[in-house]
Amino acid sequence: MVESREVKIAVDAMGGDFAPENPVLGAVMASEEYGIKIILVGEQKALEAELCKYSSRKDAIEIIHAEETIRMDEDALHAVRKKKKSSLKIAAELIKDKRADGLVSAGNTGAMVAIMKVIVGTLKGVERPALAILIPHLKGFSILIDVGANVDCKALHLQQFAIMGSIYAEEILKIEKPRVGLLSIGEEEIKGNELTKEVFKALKSTDCNFIGNIEGKDVYAGVVDVIVCDGFIGNIVLKVSESMVEAIEKMLREELSRTVWTKLGYALSRNAFKTFKKRLDYSEYGGAPMLGVDGIAIICHGRSPAKAIKNAIRVAKDFASHRLSDTIQQKILQSREKARINI
Amino acid sequence: MVESREVKIAVDAMGGDFAPENPVLGAVMASEEYGIKIILVGEQKALEAELCKYSSRKDAIEIIHAEETIRMDEDALHAVRKKKKSSLKIAAELIKDKRADGLVSAGNTGAMVAIMKVIVGTLKGVERPALAILIPHLKGFSILIDVGANVDCKALHLQQFAIMGSIYAEEILKIEKPRVGLLSIGEEEIKGNELTKEVFKALKSTDCNFIGNIEGKDVYAGVVDVIVCDGFIGNIVLKVSESMVEAIEKMLREELSRTVWTKLGYALSRNAFKTFKKRLDYSEYGGAPMLGVDGIAIICHGRSPAKAIKNAIRVAKDFASHRLSDTIQQKILQSREKARINI
Repeated sequence: MVESREVKIAVDAMGGDFAPENPVLGAVMASEEYGIKIILVGEQKALEAELCKYSSRKDAIEIIHAEETIRMDEDALHAVRKKKKSSLKIAAELIKDKRADGLVSAGNTGAMVAIMKVIVGTLKGVERPALAILIPHLKGFSILIDVGANVDCKALHLQQFAIMGSIYAEEILKIEKPRVGLLSIGEEEIKGNELTKEVFKALKSTDCNFIGNIEGKDVYAGVVDVIVCDGFIGNIVLKVSESMVEAIEKMLREELSRTVWTKLGYALSRNAFKTFKKRLDYSEYGGAPMLGVDGIAIICHGRSPAKAIKNAIRVAKDFASHRLSDTIQQKILQSREKARINI
Repeated sequence: MVESREVKIAVDAMGGDFAPENPVLGAVMASEEYGIKIILVGEQKALEAELCKYSSRKDAIEIIHAEETIRMDEDALHAVRKKKKSSLKIAAELIKDKRADGLVSAGNTGAMVAIMKVIVGTLKGVERPALAILIPHLKGFSILIDVGANVDCKALHLQQFAIMGSIYAEEILKIEKPRVGLLSIGEEEIKGNELTKEVFKALKSTDCNFIGNIEGKDVYAGVVDVIVCDGFIGNIVLKVSESMVEAIEKMLREELSRTVWTKLGYALSRNAFKTFKKRLDYSEYGGAPMLGVDGIAIICHGRSPAKAIKNAIRVAKDFASHRLSDTIQQKILQSREKARINI
């Protein structure tokens, strides 16, 4: 493990449904808990007003002014082209200029992906950066990659997602030889669509601990550590899951409010429900790292509480101190070299 | 509505995890409740032994012997080629020869799809038959089509799935002008992958009540009546949901067993949990019709209880008495004619 020099994380303080309150509080918590420096990027006066609420060390948190904010519902490409002085863009420039080691934002995901690609660029050898998210299962977490940065992928892209996801699992989650599964519709190599059949072959040729196809039914069963799919599928899996948690909660509440006894039962077990809901809430788990860009970028859920922002800052710090980008670039270049030799 | 002549449904009595017990009991229940005739197809002696348990009218249930059974885990294509005398194949031949109006099976889905295509064939104008399933939401059900019969689809295929799904919603579920949504990763027409962008255009040109793209988060929110996607996505959505229900149940049970109070709470609300679980159990809802084949075929979940088989027989009966296949063929031919004129 590489020891950390002083790590500095930029936070897009205007991003998210509860900005700047939650990003600022998350930053204050992180700077205290992890002893790292933070740069808050956003509307100076609003950030100063927020920061005043806390007795944080003045030298630990710096503010860099940005006069524009990209809204959550704004068209990503339009925002990137038109808003030259957005908090997200200025924060990304800090990464590019090596004035910060990582960037955390709960803002517009599409805009963040586009800005990172344009301003910071991809690592050498990486075809497409991907978003990785942690999904909970009974025994811990799996990484789902990609969850939305890329649609219409080729086999090489998914092969690289697998390599990057494995490094994340190994270095940050400390899983030895992380098991990699390809999301498909049957376990056998011949099951799936044209893309997955090609990816299956491509994954066998990597150094990843590829265990084969997995099915939808395995996603929450914890049978693999890294679940690989294109961003179209990954996004749908993620959002269907969110939709289902909400529907299940409402249905359960409906059922539990039918009689006096069930109401009493619910009252007695309310805390259990709270813990349970937290376990399922993606926004708690420190965000989705964008792997494959030449810098560290962690995207948080728009409705992230301060604690989630704090966790994402911790993940960014871990990525920086482990020099994860270096490892990704090295392994990706190795895999490309290997493929070249085998041709 | 077309009034029913005497409807006769064939049941693959050897299909499913609990065969022949559940299919036979389901058939007995259906023949009594709906006053229809049933043909049980399978191992004669085993079926006679099962049937003896019930005091069903002898003239209502007929047995046709089949000496082979396709196992649940058997490779579908292999089974279709090698097992010429399987219960599934003999039942499909009854449909082809118009000796039965519909077929219900809880057996091997892949084998059923293949056998129906080969033995019974598709309706004129239909490019690819599709599997439609009902998914529960807070206010009722949506139809998800396709859930696994087709991967690597073209725009025309999904256009036809939308037309067939709409007819199912209108005629059987009695939904007026069923709202059709295309499953994608953003609401705007330009969001999605290459396929969905093309399908979006194709759907606008149909007579369907197409309301645009929906996202994963809308699947369990009941915003549309018919959700259209290719079979790869549909299968993953379905199986991820099943996996999630199981994981959620286990997590909740873990949380509820932590203290005396939460245990008591659970004990008091146990019935609510049972009802809730039933609401989420796809196997209860009468199976997945295979739309677009020249006959009626309903596929049930492998672990279907007798009641689910009974429900599927009711759906098959409804399809027959509404002459749903005729409507599908007519509307599909109309849509192709319209497309030809517009070229």
